[in-house]
Amino acid sequence: MERLDNLAHERETAQFDVEAMKIVWAGSKHELDVSDRMARLVASDPVFRKDNRTMLARKELFKNTLKKTAHAWKRINELHLTEEEASKMRFFIDEPAYTDLHWGMFVPAIKGQGTEEQQKKWLPLAYKMQIIGCYAQTELGHGSNVQGLETTATFDPKTDEFIIHSPTLTSSKWWPGGLGKVSTHAVVYARLITEGKDYGIHGFIVQLRSLDDHSPLPGITVGDIGNKFGSGAYNTMDNGVLQFDHVRIPRDQLLMRLSQVTREGKYVQSDVPRQLLYSTMVYVRQTIVADASRALSRAVCIATRYSAVRKQFGSQDGGPESAVINYKTQQNRLFPLIASAYAFRFVGEWLKSLYTDVTQRLQANDFSTLAEAHACTAGLKSLTTSVTADGIEECRKLCGGHGYLSSSGLPELFAVYIPACTYEGDNIVLLLQVARFLMKTVSQLTTGKKPVGTTAYMGNIEHLMQCRCMVNTADDWLNPSAIQEAFEARAVRMAVNCAQNVSKAPSQEEGFLNLSADLVEAAIAHCQLIVVTKFIEKVQQDIMGNGVKEQLEILCNIYALNLLHKHLGDFLVTGSITPKQGALVSEQLRSLYSKLRPNVVTIVDAFNYTDHYLGSVLGRYDGNVYPALYEEAWKDPLNESAVPEGYEEYIRPVLKQQLRLARL
Amino acid sequence: MERLDNLAHERETAQFDVEAMKIVWAGSKHELDVSDRMARLVASDPVFRKDNRTMLARKELFKNTLKKTAHAWKRINELHLTEEEASKMRFFIDEPAYTDLHWGMFVPAIKGQGTEEQQKKWLPLAYKMQIIGCYAQTELGHGSNVQGLETTATFDPKTDEFIIHSPTLTSSKWWPGGLGKVSTHAVVYARLITEGKDYGIHGFIVQLRSLDDHSPLPGITVGDIGNKFGSGAYNTMDNGVLQFDHVRIPRDQLLMRLSQVTREGKYVQSDVPRQLLYSTMVYVRQTIVADASRALSRAVCIATRYSAVRKQFGSQDGGPESAVINYKTQQNRLFPLIASAYAFRFVGEWLKSLYTDVTQRLQANDFSTLAEAHACTAGLKSLTTSVTADGIEECRKLCGGHGYLSSSGLPELFAVYIPACTYEGDNIVLLLQVARFLMKTVSQLTTGKKPVGTTAYMGNIEHLMQCRCMVNTADDWLNPSAIQEAFEARAVRMAVNCAQNVSKAPSQEEGFLNLSADLVEAAIAHCQLIVVTKFIEKVQQDIMGNGVKEQLEILCNIYALNLLHKHLGDFLVTGSITPKQGALVSEQLRSLYSKLRPNVVTIVDAFNYTDHYLGSVLGRYDGNVYPALYEEAWKDPLNESAVPEGYEEYIRPVLKQQLRLARL
Repeated sequence: MERLDNLAHERETAQFDVEAMKIVWAGSKHELDVSDRMARLVASDPVFRKDNRTMLARKELFKNTLKKTAHAWKRINELHLTEEEASKMRFFIDEPAYTDLHWGMFVPAIKGQGTEEQQKKWLPLAYKMQIIGCYAQTELGHGSNVQGLETTATFDPKTDEFIIHSPTLTSSKWWPGGLGKVSTHAVVYARLITEGKDYGIHGFIVQLRSLDDHSPLPGITVGDIGNKFGSGAYNTMDNGVLQFDHVRIPRDQLLMRLSQVTREGKYVQSDVPRQLLYSTMVYVRQTIVADASRALSRAVCIATRYSAVRKQFGSQDGGPESAVINYKTQQNRLFPLIASAYAFRFVGEWLKSLYTDVTQRLQANDFSTLAEAHACTAGLKSLTTSVTADGIEECRKLCGGHGYLSSSGLPELFAVYIPACTYEGDNIVLLLQVARFLMKTVSQLTTGKKPVGTTAYMGNIEHLMQCRCMVNTADDWLNPSAIQEAFEARAVRMAVNCAQNVSKAPSQEEGFLNLSADLVEAAIAHCQLIVVTKFIEKVQQDIMGNGVKEQLEILCNIYALNLLHKHLGDFLVTGSITPKQGALVSEQLRSLYSKLRPNVVTIVDAFNYTDHYLGSVLGRYDGNVYPALYEEAWKDPLNESAVPEGYEEYIRPVLKQQLRLARL
Repeated sequence: MERLDNLAHERETAQFDVEAMKIVWAGSKHELDVSDRMARLVASDPVFRKDNRTMLARKELFKNTLKKTAHAWKRINELHLTEEEASKMRFFIDEPAYTDLHWGMFVPAIKGQGTEEQQKKWLPLAYKMQIIGCYAQTELGHGSNVQGLETTATFDPKTDEFIIHSPTLTSSKWWPGGLGKVSTHAVVYARLITEGKDYGIHGFIVQLRSLDDHSPLPGITVGDIGNKFGSGAYNTMDNGVLQFDHVRIPRDQLLMRLSQVTREGKYVQSDVPRQLLYSTMVYVRQTIVADASRALSRAVCIATRYSAVRKQFGSQDGGPESAVINYKTQQNRLFPLIASAYAFRFVGEWLKSLYTDVTQRLQANDFSTLAEAHACTAGLKSLTTSVTADGIEECRKLCGGHGYLSSSGLPELFAVYIPACTYEGDNIVLLLQVARFLMKTVSQLTTGKKPVGTTAYMGNIEHLMQCRCMVNTADDWLNPSAIQEAFEARAVRMAVNCAQNVSKAPSQEEGFLNLSADLVEAAIAHCQLIVVTKFIEKVQQDIMGNGVKEQLEILCNIYALNLLHKHLGDFLVTGSITPKQGALVSEQLRSLYSKLRPNVVTIVDAFNYTDHYLGSVLGRYDGNVYPALYEEAWKDPLNESAVPEGYEEYIRPVLKQQLRLARL
């Protein structure tokens, strides 16, 4: 049955070509096509339904995920999907599963840290999924500080084996996804000890479970670490705990690309540059930034559509109620998040090219941009994941009470997303790394060393320390160079200010620790500048499609000016702009919101998300929200009977004053 | 078996009398004693265990809550608990249940809106729980805008009955707690229609279910609205959906204190002032502010204790790892939240006295402070619940990865808490109400009308518009009058600025809508001033106990100065302080954090929370976190077998390349 499109009137007011915008968002026509095909494939397959996910108890939920994963693998093989297609398919299945770690961490670890011989042995098994692997680094007592890991791998020259051992409770591996119940193998990080000496953390391939009957091997204690945030969400994943009791593995299961242990037990470094490891980090973090734009775009898509459907309050003279998206308070919260989703999409796209560049340089033994690229990806990972996590929750609030229902999709999206703020580097720890790099860059400015990449603007320090913002009217804030200069001035002045304060401390280290809160703020300023810059650069490129560029300009300005308003204190305290100019920002923002308003539903349509992927009754493409909410409600197990289980034991005795006799 | 107190060294460094602080936090020795007794009573009763809550499927979970509720009612009667004790007991049971609405909304609605006769009939039934009631206001399509509700109550003079009816899908009652499965009665809000005229929203007592067998009465469709945010959390509650198909109730079930319908169908207003309804709103919101301080204190207690246990990174020269609470970035995020918990506790205490004052004035027909009190409670409800919701999530992040485990208690605390931002007035809508009141107050300043209560400072407008902050050194920021004046100047200048901009618009209403984002910021500035003022007033009172006052002064300064730093843009743009003075704030904050550091674990001990109430392995009093985490993990149903259910169907076929044959 065809249903009316309740949002047709919103779509009619769009002033741009949505099909062209879809290509911009996807990255290319090809990527749009692949995504579109895979999204529809998943949506049309009943095995991949997910509307019941938040109602399942843990065991059912987990078993259901195993089913989906096996089914996906079957389909991937049957349809001879390419790697790109398979990865898109997994993405649209939209359920954390052991395969994420197998393909995303286990395989890359062997590729990156294994010798050619090791790759030849292990990769075919992994590619065919004849073994399933995970990545066992984090321990119960050690997360951020990898150098503090306690698991030991002691070489025994008598048998030519490493003995993997968990010497303490806190050394238990803890968190690795896919570890608890599924993985047959793991890349385990442990302190390599040979000839009585501790050589620090190295990776080892360790078999955990029998390939015959899946039971844990002798000396291995392995299990699931229990329930996590939310219903559904990451409870589909068997994050695991793992303890080793003197488990022996052959010497050649040390991942040996960077260092080996000889038959005699000598520790030998290979001549492969250790910096190669960084490129993996750059790669992983770049994918996290891409994920951020996807998660945030999904949340704003739901909130935007529902805000266009939901009506509250009318004019004071009792007229009809107005869609909440017409309220400035709603626009003021929602529109910058839409702009952020686009901003993160483009900075993610740029990071992908940065990764390619870094990799090519490494192959040519050029390490000159590595530190900057590393700091840049660390900072962008931190910035985009923090904003996205908060943004999803803000979108939930923007949906009013109904956002709290699981059927809105937002609670589960939030629960699934937030670990991104912690994994692959805690966001605050990462910002401190960025700050350290900024302090180093500032200190080297006087030595004449030219800052590279995203810190290049610091080379312009003399101008930036004394320039004055030339904005006189609200419309002057539409000038990209005014925005760019204000962000550069703020970032460089905050960095220089921190550097001066750090230098006043008795030692650099003490100063750094003492001022770390300020340093974090300086790092954020730098990272925001990067995102603003890349958005401006994107908008200055040729962009196809009627009206598309104009909309992106509006989004770019909203992104930058909203940040400017939100961090006004930074801009004022550094004198990067004046209070008067700050007030003009608010004025211009109001005007930008009005310009975006008629296009906003179509702007989120451009993400091209299926209703299946969105998984939200509030975010339905057709806006037909209320009947869907009503239908969803009745699916709850509590509604299987009109009188609830427990009535006889626990409600009737209360009502009938028979509690004294009751045995509860 | 006695276990070591892993936090003993933290408790030894405290510079104040924790027992005296407990009394300050509780409000009095008496309140501390009652809380302490009830908390222990609940903690020692196995029926009230809650460590398995997040693992239960919906039906089991709900049934378990029914069991706890019945058991609590039994114990309340057996032990002849006072109303105060019973309410504390329910609080420490710490599980949303239908009784919250029965006692917190149904009974007060009858008391507030029923005639004496109605009270005499219905209250004894409710007090003995021979009927169970809920509060059915919100509808599927209408939340914030009560005047938009669609349910009708049409008087039929032929039978002397009201006909309650749901004319549309969106008029379905939606959200009321206790409605779905338990309540036998509800106070239903509907449009009163008589003699063909719509008299707007009124409350009616409507029976929903048979008192014989609990089945829904004819014409009533009632059920649960389905799964909500999180596992455990509000899924213990049967938030309900309710539709009426021409349900008839006797005329005298209209709550008639304010207006009646005569036998003939005439609508008559009583001479009871309608303003009385506001006092209920003041009461309810005051309890929400008190709840905010409890929820936030609970989160910071967990985060503080675990931050003192958890170690990461050492000095650069490879020394032992440091507790994360020693890091300034951790302090900078955590300590202001601890200070906020105390700030909200004291402003809540003050609101209680405000409620008493308002009630007494109303009884004397004095309505002069009502509008101000209403705006004040609306604003404080909004401010405290928003900060608390964000604060709980920040505490979770402060616990690193382990905060994501349900056993940390923080995911469920967050999920249970966040509806407070939406119910009893959406937080943004409330701030707009505050802003309207502020605009009115500003406009009346010229007419010579003296602002009252928390807006009294606006009477000092001439001084506040031109005063200059006298702070010259970081220590000058310890002067309460410097803080107070800076907050007053900022608030009044933002309000005046908004008023001027609104007046430039073609109409007041248009100006208000257009500038609503700025108005929200002005309202926040005003509300923060109230909290700061009440904290300062509290600290200036006599406070018993060695060192207690000193610690509260530190917390008060942290609260105020952190806000000042966070909203620096406001203070600078209004010229309330200078950039130099802003920089001194950061300096003073660092020094305050150092002063709080040796006391901080004991500061959160003063909340006197049992491990049962905290419900967090990370927040354990004894700090013995890691063995507890490990033990909890093994309780997960997934760990019932080493090889998971689903292995044969979904894992083995993948590993053995037998998928093509498998039927999934």
